[in-house]
Amino acid sequence: MAGSSIGTIFRITTWGESHGKAIGVVIDGCPAGLSLSESDIQPYLDRRKPGQSKFSTPRKEDDEIEILSGVFEGKTTGTPISMLLYNTSQHSKDYSEIASYYRPGHADFTFDAKYGFRDYRGGGRSSGRETAARVAAGAVAIKILEQLGISVNAYTRSIGDICINPDNFNIEEINNNMLYMPDADAANEAGKLIETVSLDKDSIGGSIECVIHNVPIGIGDPVFEKLDANLAKAIMSIGAVKGVEIGDGIKVSTKKGSENNDAFCLDENKAVTKKTNHAGGILGGISDGSDIIVRAAFKATPSIFKEQDTVNKHGEEISIAIKGRHDPVIVPRAVVVVEAMTAITLVDALLLNMAANMDNIKKFYK
Amino acid sequence: MAGSSIGTIFRITTWGESHGKAIGVVIDGCPAGLSLSESDIQPYLDRRKPGQSKFSTPRKEDDEIEILSGVFEGKTTGTPISMLLYNTSQHSKDYSEIASYYRPGHADFTFDAKYGFRDYRGGGRSSGRETAARVAAGAVAIKILEQLGISVNAYTRSIGDICINPDNFNIEEINNNMLYMPDADAANEAGKLIETVSLDKDSIGGSIECVIHNVPIGIGDPVFEKLDANLAKAIMSIGAVKGVEIGDGIKVSTKKGSENNDAFCLDENKAVTKKTNHAGGILGGISDGSDIIVRAAFKATPSIFKEQDTVNKHGEEISIAIKGRHDPVIVPRAVVVVEAMTAITLVDALLLNMAANMDNIKKFYK
Amino acid sequence: MAGSSIGTIFRITTWGESHGKAIGVVIDGCPAGLSLSESDIQPYLDRRKPGQSKFSTPRKEDDEIEILSGVFEGKTTGTPISMLLYNTSQHSKDYSEIASYYRPGHADFTFDAKYGFRDYRGGGRSSGRETAARVAAGAVAIKILEQLGISVNAYTRSIGDICINPDNFNIEEINNNMLYMPDADAANEAGKLIETVSLDKDSIGGSIECVIHNVPIGIGDPVFEKLDANLAKAIMSIGAVKGVEIGDGIKVSTKKGSENNDAFCLDENKAVTKKTNHAGGILGGISDGSDIIVRAAFKATPSIFKEQDTVNKHGEEISIAIKGRHDPVIVPRAVVVVEAMTAITLVDALLLNMAANMDNIKKFYK
Amino acid sequence: MAGSSIGTIFRITTWGESHGKAIGVVIDGCPAGLSLSESDIQPYLDRRKPGQSKFSTPRKEDDEIEILSGVFEGKTTGTPISMLLYNTSQHSKDYSEIASYYRPGHADFTFDAKYGFRDYRGGGRSSGRETAARVAAGAVAIKILEQLGISVNAYTRSIGDICINPDNFNIEEINNNMLYMPDADAANEAGKLIETVSLDKDSIGGSIECVIHNVPIGIGDPVFEKLDANLAKAIMSIGAVKGVEIGDGIKVSTKKGSENNDAFCLDENKAVTKKTNHAGGILGGISDGSDIIVRAAFKATPSIFKEQDTVNKHGEEISIAIKGRHDPVIVPRAVVVVEAMTAITLVDALLLNMAANMDNIKKFYK
Repeated sequence: MAGSSIGTIFRITTWGESHGKAIGVVIDGCPAGLSLSESDIQPYLDRRKPGQSKFSTPRKEDDEIEILSGVFEGKTTGTPISMLLYNTSQHSKDYSEIASYYRPGHADFTFDAKYGFRDYRGGGRSSGRETAARVAAGAVAIKILEQLGISVNAYTRSIGDICINPDNFNIEEINNNMLYMPDADAANEAGKLIETVSLDKDSIGGSIECVIHNVPIGIGDPVFEKLDANLAKAIMSIGAVKGVEIGDGIKVSTKKGSENNDAFCLDENKAVTKKTNHAGGILGGISDGSDIIVRAAFKATPSIFKEQDTVNKHGEEISIAIKGRHDPVIVPRAVVVVEAMTAITLVDALLLNMAANMDNIKKFYK
Repeated sequence: MAGSSIGTIFRITTWGESHGKAIGVVIDGCPAGLSLSESDIQPYLDRRKPGQSKFSTPRKEDDEIEILSGVFEGKTTGTPISMLLYNTSQHSKDYSEIASYYRPGHADFTFDAKYGFRDYRGGGRSSGRETAARVAAGAVAIKILEQLGISVNAYTRSIGDICINPDNFNIEEINNNMLYMPDADAANEAGKLIETVSLDKDSIGGSIECVIHNVPIGIGDPVFEKLDANLAKAIMSIGAVKGVEIGDGIKVSTKKGSENNDAFCLDENKAVTKKTNHAGGILGGISDGSDIIVRAAFKATPSIFKEQDTVNKHGEEISIAIKGRHDPVIVPRAVVVVEAMTAITLVDALLLNMAANMDNIKKFYK
Repeated sequence: MAGSSIGTIFRITTWGESHGKAIGVVIDGCPAGLSLSESDIQPYLDRRKPGQSKFSTPRKEDDEIEILSGVFEGKTTGTPISMLLYNTSQHSKDYSEIASYYRPGHADFTFDAKYGFRDYRGGGRSSGRETAARVAAGAVAIKILEQLGISVNAYTRSIGDICINPDNFNIEEINNNMLYMPDADAANEAGKLIETVSLDKDSIGGSIECVIHNVPIGIGDPVFEKLDANLAKAIMSIGAVKGVEIGDGIKVSTKKGSENNDAFCLDENKAVTKKTNHAGGILGGISDGSDIIVRAAFKATPSIFKEQDTVNKHGEEISIAIKGRHDPVIVPRAVVVVEAMTAITLVDALLLNMAANMDNIKKFYK
Repeated sequence: MAGSSIGTIFRITTWGESHGKAIGVVIDGCPAGLSLSESDIQPYLDRRKPGQSKFSTPRKEDDEIEILSGVFEGKTTGTPISMLLYNTSQHSKDYSEIASYYRPGHADFTFDAKYGFRDYRGGGRSSGRETAARVAAGAVAIKILEQLGISVNAYTRSIGDICINPDNFNIEEINNNMLYMPDADAANEAGKLIETVSLDKDSIGGSIECVIHNVPIGIGDPVFEKLDANLAKAIMSIGAVKGVEIGDGIKVSTKKGSENNDAFCLDENKAVTKKTNHAGGILGGISDGSDIIVRAAFKATPSIFKEQDTVNKHGEEISIAIKGRHDPVIVPRAVVVVEAMTAITLVDALLLNMAANMDNIKKFYK
């Protein structure tokens, strides 16, 4: 079934395997008249690129994005924007062995069961490399949001047990450390943890938080197309995510109504606002004007060098140790992916909202 | 925008406001030949019904479901199944006051901002009553799953800080207590907690867990239509949910790869299975044959009798105490809603999976 | 599969069988703030109602539409509008015989083949009665169009060989004759033809034309969501339609470019317009500001009283003569259905167009 | 809005402009396990290629298709198949003049009105070149159909007033003449007509017929997703099409029920079949086992060398004569496009049909 598209008006379709010729994305429904060139997109891909630091896989790719359509004389035309990245640095032989068995924590087994066989090279379609295409589309979405004064900021919130300290929170710090943590001390500690884990041929999980600032009130739709429901889908669709939270998230289950309700009040301009933001900027599936806060829990990289038990295609129980190039932690490189999926979801909701009431429609077509 | 539908092949559309004439659901794409009558659906609605216990609102409704189409001589015909519940027990005057202000934690403010006005009676479209329509559709989905040998079981996992004890877990117990907890002791303690909270004019949150047993391997699609992504959307679309987890969920962020990976092994029939199930039955967005485990965190009922600060429509800061009939905890009545949304999501994925490979298609059309 | 919905933002879902309890429609995505009551819709249903004239089936139904949701204090709220019509005048026994065989020209055989059985009463889901639900939704769409100054007018263009004479065209005449023809003479002749055909226990085909006036320029999207492509789908989805034309339609196949091209020119206000309108108001799938012209060819009612050959469910060749109440011509009652489907398609395209370019989006969210 | 995708399970997304870097298509939802390589696709593109004959534009392109993803070891993997064609032969300067005015019969004016500007080179996104991407996707659909024993054959039915003679119909002849007509005499006459028209700096319209043989009974869904409704959309979405017919098409409007109804009978194997096929293989939107017959009316190429009146961007009425390379007739090159769109529509309907009834679902998952 057609599973590689997301969005209604602003709709992206990704394609490509880790070790195929290329990967790419088509954005259909991007509004016309947005200034756009490869240089708007490349910086986002660079943030996701492997080989950036000692904490990420040594596979180096140029990952140079190419725009093939939908842009004319520097502006989007309203027609599909097709972008691709050629795969230039595959070491396919690294993966020849894994063709024969199922790596624990990976989709090898389920792909084989569903499709009868799989492109086993580097994880094929279920490789993290697919997210580069999401990031390229996300860069376009972020550019649209910027035009509307909306900013999206994701960062690493925790690695293993090391969590950022709210008192140390410094948004400027995010790009100062290789882990994209807004807390220098936490980043330092987390770095040490990753080294320890790496030496032990193991990997470690973590979490990412994303904050969207200045969202207009009224974005999102009731019932099934709630903004938080679509964010949950978009974020959970990222490979290693096993939990998604909005605002106070899981913690709300232990709170009382009087603790969790955000009282409404008036700001200095007499506009309605909230005294607190436990809700994470969404009420009834619709943005309330406060910051939207989304969190994602990532599992540890399933590819570890430690010995593991598994089964091969001949139905034998075997013991394996995965080789190749693998990050000991997925989280830092996934920060920009979370940002991208959040922006893509929000842009679509913003465009859909324009037709929500007759007054606006009449004004538009008068 | 059209936000009240979910699903691709098995697609439901709910409609109706808390205090309108009726609420209902249309299921389009239900396979033909399923035995179906009102008596298959009513028991699920009864589980959600208010006035069942001292822990739920005293509003009593008969909530008698009526099937208006799509069933002929006791079997579904493949055409849309339209079902409705008339609203018979509304006390609209209870809500007349709230027309003038925004209840904290509710969608009053965001609906007004989006649409210019709202049906304020009982929360209108954003009322929990809308979930009765989901439950009716869910009952049909569950019946389809039963035909395929798949069972879905949701239960209350925690209320406030009171969580079920895995050592006491007893699935038979779920329907023995009014809180739908599979642990009699926890249910007892949680009951006391709710009473305390109620006396204090407050409310409390909790969490629900849902386990799907016997799902075929291979269900779900890569990338954006991952089974876990669609479950996340379906569950997050339930009013008070602020967090969704699959398998070990949030906890994976603190675990190592060697702890979190589930080793593959062979079962007594030499079929591939997993030694553990941290993944919650889904790998790469596709079911792996183990139990699928989903968890949802619910916030406390935002309607509390305690005094709260808010703003009215005239732009004045005021203090309010909500009146009317409100549950001190949403969770027990939401158990069947989680079950419904899980089943609806899974049925759709099962139907979509039938076209995944040419061998099956050729066999089908030979 | 879910086949009973159409539209992206303005999305309708119809349900119900000819002789079930009721039929109905849910409109999701109707903008908030539109004045709406049953009295806006009933006149459209009355135009489609049987028993209106000697040319239509004597089955009389009150067909009183009921709005169950989505309207509050006389205005749409932006949430789903559910409407239904109870089936009050079914004579199910008229149809008991047809359960056993396949009526030529009907869907009896194909429904049985697809679903294994069918609701045979009155054609079940494939009955023309389903179109009453479309008409109810269409009435809402037409009301939206009126707010934007757009009018939709359908009429009978031909019955058998009797076609309206362009020189006699009088739009006022449409509602003066029972055939909805804008040419009194043609209506008179066509009436005689129908009587002759009826006496011969036969039926006759015809065609309907629909003109949309004052459509803004720029509506519709390139490639697959062209306005004409969506009109073609919407119109071809009406039971007996076998051909759809835009502008000069089929005739263009015999014309030269120099004959068929519409030269651009300036109108009195120096706005761009066209000297002719062979294109029927659509260029490249996008409205060009001229009248949009759609035509549909309807086959004769397949239910005829004449003897016909067919096959029964026991695999025997038999000879039958259909009984019951049947129109000798479908066309007059289908006029309002064509109007409805055209309006529904256009409203959706108008709402989608609002997000087509950044300038408009920035203006909207400034 | 996202207008460049079509299909539900088998879903294609085209992208690219006539004179951009490349054009392409992503097929999502292609079943796994289909043998596929560039050599399966190239022959279809070659049939559409310009410069094939004296009747088509002298622009020569290699149009070599490249598969970038979704195929592994010669078989589709179930993941998106991305294909592209680089644009190698553009003469952009040919089009520099048309940037300043609106060509009659083209989408220049409507694109400008909708998006604020346009990629004017060679028609940009609304160029017929976009159909090459459809043909590539269609080749994959046709290959799937072949595996199921279904054949799709399109051919030129008429050019101007020259129509094939049913008595001369010879399917083998289709590929013997440059006009793809199954009647050598008609092809000969039509060739002369085109030459005359060309000499007169004009162009001419025509029609294409497509016959699908051996479609299983039961394909298509009632109401809005009728097989004929989706065919109508798919065919009408091809640039120059102004009319679509199924079976006897427009002619049914003048026929009686007794003439138009197809009597059911039994074939030599005692299976139900029809004595005639006025319906064109579809009853109630569902295939009935007879040949499916679709016809499309194409307007003449709007680009003619004759002088025409139009308006320029400065709001002046001007007179123009279009230069460059243009076919005097679109039809022959569009034959394979009609075949492609028909096949794409049918494959999607075949895949969706698999989930239509519980018996099949239970058999599948037993």
